[in-house]
Amino acid sequence: MNNKVAVYRKEHFNAAHRLFNPSWDDAMNFSVFGKCANPNFHGHNYDLIIQVTGSVDERTGYVMDMKELSDIIKEHVIDVFDHKNLNVDVPYFQNLIPTAENICIVIFNILREKLDSKFEVKVRLYETERNFVEYPV
Amino acid sequence: MNNKVAVYRKEHFNAAHRLFNPSWDDAMNFSVFGKCANPNFHGHNYDLIIQVTGSVDERTGYVMDMKELSDIIKEHVIDVFDHKNLNVDVPYFQNLIPTAENICIVIFNILREKLDSKFEVKVRLYETERNFVEYPV
Amino acid sequence: MNNKVAVYRKEHFNAAHRLFNPSWDDAMNFSVFGKCANPNFHGHNYDLIIQVTGSVDERTGYVMDMKELSDIIKEHVIDVFDHKNLNVDVPYFQNLIPTAENICIVIFNILREKLDSKFEVKVRLYETERNFVEYPV
Amino acid sequence: MNNKVAVYRKEHFNAAHRLFNPSWDDAMNFSVFGKCANPNFHGHNYDLIIQVTGSVDERTGYVMDMKELSDIIKEHVIDVFDHKNLNVDVPYFQNLIPTAENICIVIFNILREKLDSKFEVKVRLYETERNFVEYPV
Amino acid sequence: MNNKVAVYRKEHFNAAHRLFNPSWDDAMNFSVFGKCANPNFHGHNYDLIIQVTGSVDERTGYVMDMKELSDIIKEHVIDVFDHKNLNVDVPYFQNLIPTAENICIVIFNILREKLDSKFEVKVRLYETERNFVEYPV
Amino acid sequence: MNNKVAVYRKEHFNAAHRLFNPSWDDAMNFSVFGKCANPNFHGHNYDLIIQVTGSVDERTGYVMDMKELSDIIKEHVIDVFDHKNLNVDVPYFQNLIPTAENICIVIFNILREKLDSKFEVKVRLYETERNFVEYPV
Repeated sequence: MNNKVAVYRKEHFNAAHRLFNPSWDDAMNFSVFGKCANPNFHGHNYDLIIQVTGSVDERTGYVMDMKELSDIIKEHVIDVFDHKNLNVDVPYFQNLIPTAENICIVIFNILREKLDSKFEVKVRLYETERNFVEYPV
Repeated sequence: MNNKVAVYRKEHFNAAHRLFNPSWDDAMNFSVFGKCANPNFHGHNYDLIIQVTGSVDERTGYVMDMKELSDIIKEHVIDVFDHKNLNVDVPYFQNLIPTAENICIVIFNILREKLDSKFEVKVRLYETERNFVEYPV
Repeated sequence: MNNKVAVYRKEHFNAAHRLFNPSWDDAMNFSVFGKCANPNFHGHNYDLIIQVTGSVDERTGYVMDMKELSDIIKEHVIDVFDHKNLNVDVPYFQNLIPTAENICIVIFNILREKLDSKFEVKVRLYETERNFVEYPV
Repeated sequence: MNNKVAVYRKEHFNAAHRLFNPSWDDAMNFSVFGKCANPNFHGHNYDLIIQVTGSVDERTGYVMDMKELSDIIKEHVIDVFDHKNLNVDVPYFQNLIPTAENICIVIFNILREKLDSKFEVKVRLYETERNFVEYPV
Repeated sequence: MNNKVAVYRKEHFNAAHRLFNPSWDDAMNFSVFGKCANPNFHGHNYDLIIQVTGSVDERTGYVMDMKELSDIIKEHVIDVFDHKNLNVDVPYFQNLIPTAENICIVIFNILREKLDSKFEVKVRLYETERNFVEYPV
Repeated sequence: MNNKVAVYRKEHFNAAHRLFNPSWDDAMNFSVFGKCANPNFHGHNYDLIIQVTGSVDERTGYVMDMKELSDIIKEHVIDVFDHKNLNVDVPYFQNLIPTAENICIVIFNILREKLDSKFEVKVRLYETERNFVEYPV
């Protein structure tokens, strides 16, 4: 058995969003997205769990320094998403509906690029305690 | 000792809001409210715990029927606040800054009027897991 | 300011129960208690938080030994209620409807008698994460 | 990398049950199942997490509408299991011991049939905070 | 009714400690404190909830700025207690047994001095999820 | 589809530790491990989730008896780690830095040897709510 370990770091951010497909009219948007289509937005406390899988470094006993992982998440995700309106303030959602699924994929793509390619990366995003998503699978 | 018992019901709603005092300029608002003053709003999953204190009815063993309490909260609070923009969509905050403190007082006032005056009522509101408020004290 | 501190110990038990007033017919019971009146019982994971308030003993730094408190709760409450049918197996509910309110009062009365009278005692009982009660108030 | 995302929906139900193998005598049942064999039943708050894995629909940003998933779980699982005695009231356990393992497999089989075959489905069932199961693996 | 609201801020720190009364011999210490007397220390993740009660400022909708409260807790409590050995590294426990009760009183005394006297202050300290204390009562 | 089910048991222990590589000088240790290198130790409440995967026994409805699993964890892990100083009191860390990664691998190795080889075993260890690890992957 190899010595690969998955390490996890939990962070969070608070944001407003609205689910809306601009190629549809309002009736279609309300039919598909219900109250999530409210034009004045609603919001969530998003909890984010980043999984990084790799070998344990014998000198440190770490897969990677969790402080360093937390700093990367804070700089590239939390500072960009926290206390923002995802539809209006966050360029990644200029042409992408900010569902939990899409937010999760966007965060994965951001972190995948910032983390060493020797690591596997996976992202779990809680929109509420009862609705959450994971990518990739 | 009397037979007064406090019963608690937990509900939740998701909403957008912005902290902003219209009698101040933007610089003053950002100085006081920081990123909570973002003009495009942010949002939260609000958890709400309603405490109702009264005597136990010997026939039912209930202080009050929690289904009935839940229905009252849903009709008069959740349906009014959930998936809304508190500043824009909820009339109670037309002239009131939607801080956790003020949201909690508003919800107390709504429920105090709907619940039998023989009960004592108290409201706890979680804006995040780390910031919450209670009224009255 | 005195040196009174409240100490809390959390325990749990799993039990079946049914809400039913024997002086009413079935129709009345279902009207009042809904699905909680199911004659074949349903059940819960009950979480119990016992609050004991007293002065800190300077020699130990304790209000009371939490191990001793836990042992008293286990002997007089958990061993009597856990994996039981409250209506059928637990004598306290021979003539008392096992609502959360009544279970909480019963547990308080049991522990009040077992704990030194110099302490104040309060009981919080979670029937679910969303429905809980506290006695006395 | 494909765009498959796992989405999760958490629901819950409260039920009574008893662990008992009818082909064994009482002594053998108590020896194997301990207090879980109590003939008068005990009960739990079961938490259920349904995982559905599929591709994100570009028009909605959804793998599937979580409201629709929740409705399916409620109609085919919660309404059948909640506030019931699993041994007595729920036909799936006529000839099957309602352990967490078996309840989880039953719920998987129910939902597997109701959900589009293009999705992968997995079920996690919490019997208590400390004992839980997942199927399939 | 006045407009007093209680606001709460949750913080945490991780620390080692040992329960030991230097005026007793080892046998007496192990008899009273059990495995908590281990001379090589053990440790906990302490969760801390600070309650501040006061009137809502109409200009801000705040009792006090939670960012300011968090900064005060961090400077005067977290930076002093976190990743420390309470018995060895934290001067408050030079002559005081670091039980949850005493840690809670010490933290209250620190914060009571730093917070405006117009506020009421209360501290809840979780040593584990199952053992916690509150001061004053 | 086979009838393999994963069953999970959650336990916990409280311990002190220090991150320190004896082949480095103090400056290097503080540079790598920060405040975790405090020579007087700090500590955590560790939560442990053991996953055991196997076929359901038709006679019991169990993958394995969770009471038996809990007893094995208690005897071979909790009694060895709880209320201990991992660096000083626990022989497994004589020459191994007690990071979450290494603690998790050690616990896996202990339990892998004690559990029937027909089962797959996986260990998740929470050092805090925000930092946790899993092995093997």
